[in-house]
Amino acid sequence: MEHHLLNTLKVKSLGIDTYSENIIFIRSDCHICRSEGFTALTRLVVHHNEKTIIATLNVVHSELLSGNEAGLSDIALERLNVREGDLIAVSHLKPIESLSDVRAKIYHNKINEKAYHKIISDITDGLYSDIEISAFIAGCAGNNMDLDEITWLTKAMIKTGSRLKWNQQVIADKHCVGGLPGNRTTPIIVAIIAASGLTIPKTSSRAITSPAGTADTMETITVVNLSTKKIKDVVNKEGGCFAWGSLAKLSPADDILITVEKALDIDSPGQMIASVLSKKVTAGSTHVLIEIPFGETAKVRTHDEALKLQYYFKAVGDAVKLNVEVLITDGSQPIGKGIGPALEAMDVLSVLRNEKQAPKDLKDKSLVIAGALLELSGKAEKGKGISEAKKILESGKAYEKFQKICLAQGGFKEPGFAKFHINITSETAGIVKSVDNRKLAKIAKLAGAPRDPSAGIYFNAPIGTKIEKGQTLYTIYSELERELQYAVDYLKSVNSIITIV
Amino acid sequence: MEHHLLNTLKVKSLGIDTYSENIIFIRSDCHICRSEGFTALTRLVVHHNEKTIIATLNVVHSELLSGNEAGLSDIALERLNVREGDLIAVSHLKPIESLSDVRAKIYHNKINEKAYHKIISDITDGLYSDIEISAFIAGCAGNNMDLDEITWLTKAMIKTGSRLKWNQQVIADKHCVGGLPGNRTTPIIVAIIAASGLTIPKTSSRAITSPAGTADTMETITVVNLSTKKIKDVVNKEGGCFAWGSLAKLSPADDILITVEKALDIDSPGQMIASVLSKKVTAGSTHVLIEIPFGETAKVRTHDEALKLQYYFKAVGDAVKLNVEVLITDGSQPIGKGIGPALEAMDVLSVLRNEKQAPKDLKDKSLVIAGALLELSGKAEKGKGISEAKKILESGKAYEKFQKICLAQGGFKEPGFAKFHINITSETAGIVKSVDNRKLAKIAKLAGAPRDPSAGIYFNAPIGTKIEKGQTLYTIYSELERELQYAVDYLKSVNSIITIV
Repeated sequence: MEHHLLNTLKVKSLGIDTYSENIIFIRSDCHICRSEGFTALTRLVVHHNEKTIIATLNVVHSELLSGNEAGLSDIALERLNVREGDLIAVSHLKPIESLSDVRAKIYHNKINEKAYHKIISDITDGLYSDIEISAFIAGCAGNNMDLDEITWLTKAMIKTGSRLKWNQQVIADKHCVGGLPGNRTTPIIVAIIAASGLTIPKTSSRAITSPAGTADTMETITVVNLSTKKIKDVVNKEGGCFAWGSLAKLSPADDILITVEKALDIDSPGQMIASVLSKKVTAGSTHVLIEIPFGETAKVRTHDEALKLQYYFKAVGDAVKLNVEVLITDGSQPIGKGIGPALEAMDVLSVLRNEKQAPKDLKDKSLVIAGALLELSGKAEKGKGISEAKKILESGKAYEKFQKICLAQGGFKEPGFAKFHINITSETAGIVKSVDNRKLAKIAKLAGAPRDPSAGIYFNAPIGTKIEKGQTLYTIYSELERELQYAVDYLKSVNSIITIV
Repeated sequence: MEHHLLNTLKVKSLGIDTYSENIIFIRSDCHICRSEGFTALTRLVVHHNEKTIIATLNVVHSELLSGNEAGLSDIALERLNVREGDLIAVSHLKPIESLSDVRAKIYHNKINEKAYHKIISDITDGLYSDIEISAFIAGCAGNNMDLDEITWLTKAMIKTGSRLKWNQQVIADKHCVGGLPGNRTTPIIVAIIAASGLTIPKTSSRAITSPAGTADTMETITVVNLSTKKIKDVVNKEGGCFAWGSLAKLSPADDILITVEKALDIDSPGQMIASVLSKKVTAGSTHVLIEIPFGETAKVRTHDEALKLQYYFKAVGDAVKLNVEVLITDGSQPIGKGIGPALEAMDVLSVLRNEKQAPKDLKDKSLVIAGALLELSGKAEKGKGISEAKKILESGKAYEKFQKICLAQGGFKEPGFAKFHINITSETAGIVKSVDNRKLAKIAKLAGAPRDPSAGIYFNAPIGTKIEKGQTLYTIYSELERELQYAVDYLKSVNSIITIV
């Protein structure tokens, strides 16, 4: 980053939390604003010793600051590593060249490998404003990236991330593209695979647009924000882990993109494939099983769409030297009974403990995926993966391994129920014909999931269930009575979520 | 906007200017954040009496505020019409439904008329964050809107704007799609048309991505930020005006969109057509001439692209009941000699005063467009428009009208030169073969235009000019020595801007 001139100001800590955006506050009548012509929303370079960040200017017209002081948002203080009283300097930001590639992308042009590298490294360096990141995400959405571009974006994310190294030849991993409430097979699969003797350093994300991510779920049982060093220790000792990927800095640009995707409630194919596969490569994985559930109200709606994603995952996987296998699964209804971090965690524990009332669909699905991964990794012969996985689970070895991993990560606790709940009962008798996953997920979110880990839905009406009039279809849980009310209000405003005929 | 609960806080004015974004500052330990689970970047509804705005939360961890106080950014104070000590209430924002249409647009789907109306009315009401506006703009960019959609967007902007009414049957107007430095024909055309006896209530924008808009240029001569009432008074008295459109609130959604387009340096066809034609309708115009300059380095690069725009302008014009005529013009090089507000204003005055050194290209082009508009409006017979326009200009009647309009708007002053300048001279002798408009515009902007109205370029080397070695090709003007240096630095970093053979 070149810059032209330095002007010194004294840091004042205002204690303002702007989340991920760097904001600098300067008085309108200070010498720098006057001489440099800085105005509100100008993007500036802020310097301290050898460090620089880019920040957006908020101009102050009050006594909040004196003329030679500058306020910084919390994240800017942290990134620049300064505290109150330190001297900083500001200078003009030269035009960020990679933004012209973002514009080209918005205009639906193909951009080249170098462009993706520059965009992703500029985002990693904090040069983009949230507005600019939003435009990049929108430009890459839909079918606007071809195979080359997804590959280049993936490679760019790999290049800007840090990379884990392992001694083993085969490193197993799995990922589900999501969109199916309660589909929490990962902890069960990791326990089975690690118990089989394979290495599976699984990192998971928090929810992007769903009521729970695997990291949110596992956080109700153990510690998930592990440093890279801690991840290595746990995996070297136990063969597996349940870590939150973001803290490991495996793909810092992706973490920034996901923040804005979440604000926009968007999760598009190209970005998703790059996000998933780049994190697999930086986690050091060699054999990766991808699950794509499809169904009318799942994230992937049609079999065609699932086949297209399968093609991209395998082709980009080849390009970045991963052994990728894809399983397309049934996404017509929730898996297990819980929707929301703690409620899903209870399902997971129930399956691992081989309890009688354990959700059979969650168990069966976990075995199918674990089995395929055992075969892909060469640990089981073709056709024998599932029975091998079943043996490990039902013998109690998987649960034993699960507990050991949790203890290595920092402890084990039982997830608890939320303070408030309401039972939603059926107004008719009949057989459940279909379930609207999206609306169920929305209710769980309105009830507070994943922010409140114990909030969510306990689901009692899978397709095919015989229902009496007045029978509980599902229970909504919430930590706040008001949020329970939001969920119920929403429920009243939509058509039936569970169709009974 | 429905809301669920009210929590009262006392307003504290922090004097923070965040430009167009509503920000609310609340302490992290205040009762509302705790009970409602609000965190940084949460979007809230803020209430005062009957008024509500949506604001983004910045959480404060310091003594800046007490627990029962809330800070508001300057624009939020203004929009909510509150001052220090007033009581406000905050509540949860229910999901904004039109955002699902924005997502559909990002995924390249066609969205319907109702969706455009809802998006634009939500933007007008301040419900969208800058991130969401950015995504909408990116989703509409390129060729991502068809004729129906551009028409619906135009109608939505008309519906949300306020509308000027005139007594005359014929209201003339003109617009240039821009992208050509120094193409400042508008003030000359308005003067000619008004002097002919027609009514032309011309509103112009400030620069979006160029070194000067017509409003910036005219502001160096007279007052341009006129209220709607003032515009009516001036036009009723003199038949024409040179007003800045934004203040007239003719299309408030468009003004918000343009702010973000400017931050992204994007100006895409669908948005542009809707922006232009909606403002023409709300200004009460009936006969509109659109100029589309095309050239390799103009905004519109090819004749095909110009023809496509012409088709859309005429078709959307039909749909919103405007008589639209389109002139496709030569955009291979700057028009006139000045680039930048004051320097372009000098060219305008020189043509109006019929000075010998007046730029002939600017005069000729103004006459062509004014002539076409006289014909379109029925004021001149077919084929006689240009000679009619010439008669009005050369008789001094146009300049007389121009001065009268300026005086009616609030005064007349001569534009001045900037403090610093540097002559850029030729290193070879020969004939000018081509000129890079984009790079010239960039230099003018680096030199401070349009922020400093006197900054810019005085251009002496149109295509075909015979140049001696050492002859001045153009002069760069700036109010700040440093910015002159930025411009020169940039100049050194690029290939030749003026090709001499």
